[in-house]
Amino acid sequence: MDESLLQALEEVSGALHDKMDALLPNPENGVGTIAEAMRYASLSGGKRLRPFLTVQSAKLFGVSHDAALTVASAIEFIHTYSLIHDDLPAMDDDDLRRGQPATHIKFTEATAILSGDALLTYAFQILSEPSVHADPGVRCELIRSIAAASGFRGMVGGQLMDLESEHEELPLDQIIRLQRLKTGELFATSCEAGAILGKAPWQMRSALRAYAHDLGLAFQIRDDLLDAEGTRTETGKNVKKDHKAGKATLVSIMGIERAREQARILAAQAIKHLDPFDDKAKHLRQMAEYVVTRRG
Amino acid sequence: MDESLLQALEEVSGALHDKMDALLPNPENGVGTIAEAMRYASLSGGKRLRPFLTVQSAKLFGVSHDAALTVASAIEFIHTYSLIHDDLPAMDDDDLRRGQPATHIKFTEATAILSGDALLTYAFQILSEPSVHADPGVRCELIRSIAAASGFRGMVGGQLMDLESEHEELPLDQIIRLQRLKTGELFATSCEAGAILGKAPWQMRSALRAYAHDLGLAFQIRDDLLDAEGTRTETGKNVKKDHKAGKATLVSIMGIERAREQARILAAQAIKHLDPFDDKAKHLRQMAEYVVTRRG
Repeated sequence: MDESLLQALEEVSGALHDKMDALLPNPENGVGTIAEAMRYASLSGGKRLRPFLTVQSAKLFGVSHDAALTVASAIEFIHTYSLIHDDLPAMDDDDLRRGQPATHIKFTEATAILSGDALLTYAFQILSEPSVHADPGVRCELIRSIAAASGFRGMVGGQLMDLESEHEELPLDQIIRLQRLKTGELFATSCEAGAILGKAPWQMRSALRAYAHDLGLAFQIRDDLLDAEGTRTETGKNVKKDHKAGKATLVSIMGIERAREQARILAAQAIKHLDPFDDKAKHLRQMAEYVVTRRG
Repeated sequence: MDESLLQALEEVSGALHDKMDALLPNPENGVGTIAEAMRYASLSGGKRLRPFLTVQSAKLFGVSHDAALTVASAIEFIHTYSLIHDDLPAMDDDDLRRGQPATHIKFTEATAILSGDALLTYAFQILSEPSVHADPGVRCELIRSIAAASGFRGMVGGQLMDLESEHEELPLDQIIRLQRLKTGELFATSCEAGAILGKAPWQMRSALRAYAHDLGLAFQIRDDLLDAEGTRTETGKNVKKDHKAGKATLVSIMGIERAREQARILAAQAIKHLDPFDDKAKHLRQMAEYVVTRRG
């Protein structure tokens, strides 16, 4: 990874951790277990890609770093809640998350369900507050965009579509639609959020949304490629869930070579969408290059 | 029940059903199962008490009926999501809700978890939209109030406290705190919502909050009383969950006579909080009388 991209990622990740830590409730303030579970799930690391997109896009419009981090925290709380619920036995049934016991293992299933609910609810509370932006119209626009991306026509709808298509061979266009809902929409809103905060014109908002959608899909193809290559070279221990479930992926349908090519095209396309922006979009451009070359 | 109260309740309930029906996604529009489950859980009846509070308080300030119904729908979606998640096997494990199969029985556990998540998310999307109020500051204030009432310091926090206290004899003040979080806060915000929509002064907002808190607690005591009386006169078939779990209730601690007296005091106190309002608060006053005399 490019040195300056790595540094930028680490800076966002560190600042985000501090902001989330400050926003999250304290178990000592009479909200014991629920606060512990919310903190456990939120502060256990992760790539923090969505917050990175928000912070970088906010920079394009000279938005206050603190406001961008607050919005990025709200989005990361939503991403975190989705991971907590996805890991539940009735869903993907994963005991581990980021190398640690999943929330329902560390606590109980009930605590996992409720702490996910609490993080989702808290995200919208945070977004409604004046510290995000003096103009309440901007706050409403952020809430609308983020809620739409997370709900039945976004992340949650994609997650159910994914569960329903297990052991099913979806055609390519359906897989792309599924990915677009499941991860693409939240990527897009994360990147758009900086533009909303900066009251940027629609044209720039859609350029950033388009960038993030291409980036998200390229990211997903790279994930599938790393997974497929893993199954060929490893003993099977590292075989991921998609292969165990016999689920169709973009790579299993397109084949490795075509998928690699497709990821490169998407990355180039993502960078092209950034043409309206000057050198301040450098890290977003580097990110598009990085996602299709990363080894893990 | 007073004829005019009954009529007012039925009017709200009917108009709310139509509004929720219009707001909910259609399964035909490419969001199949998730839309079906959201509709199934939301449109299956219920007392619609929270929407009633919102509509009646909105009337005090001459707020548009349509806007009040939209906000009431958002609140009822949040109440509905909480019932879906509460009924899950990992939580209260109830197969029936309002005489119908619970959402996780009618569909699957995964669908129940996700449709609850979707309803919660959609509630905030609805509240962010201009149809609620032309002033985005009002929309943000509604979102802040409703999110705070539903989250870790409100409904979700109370629900976890409730689960954690099973088979435990909580002292009276802790039971009251639990009820305040679990149901009182959402009652309070439902009633406050009309005042927020009407840009009412703080004094009136807190009067309505205080009314709703007293009403909510009186309602809860009456529930416990009906339950306790049921266990003495019935065969046991109608014994409710609280007794089966050996859970302490306000009635089991105070005794039936004191509890009855307490409910009457709370109802009178609730009505007293409505002193600043004229005859337009008639149905709210009648509601306070009704909750402590109802037979079911």
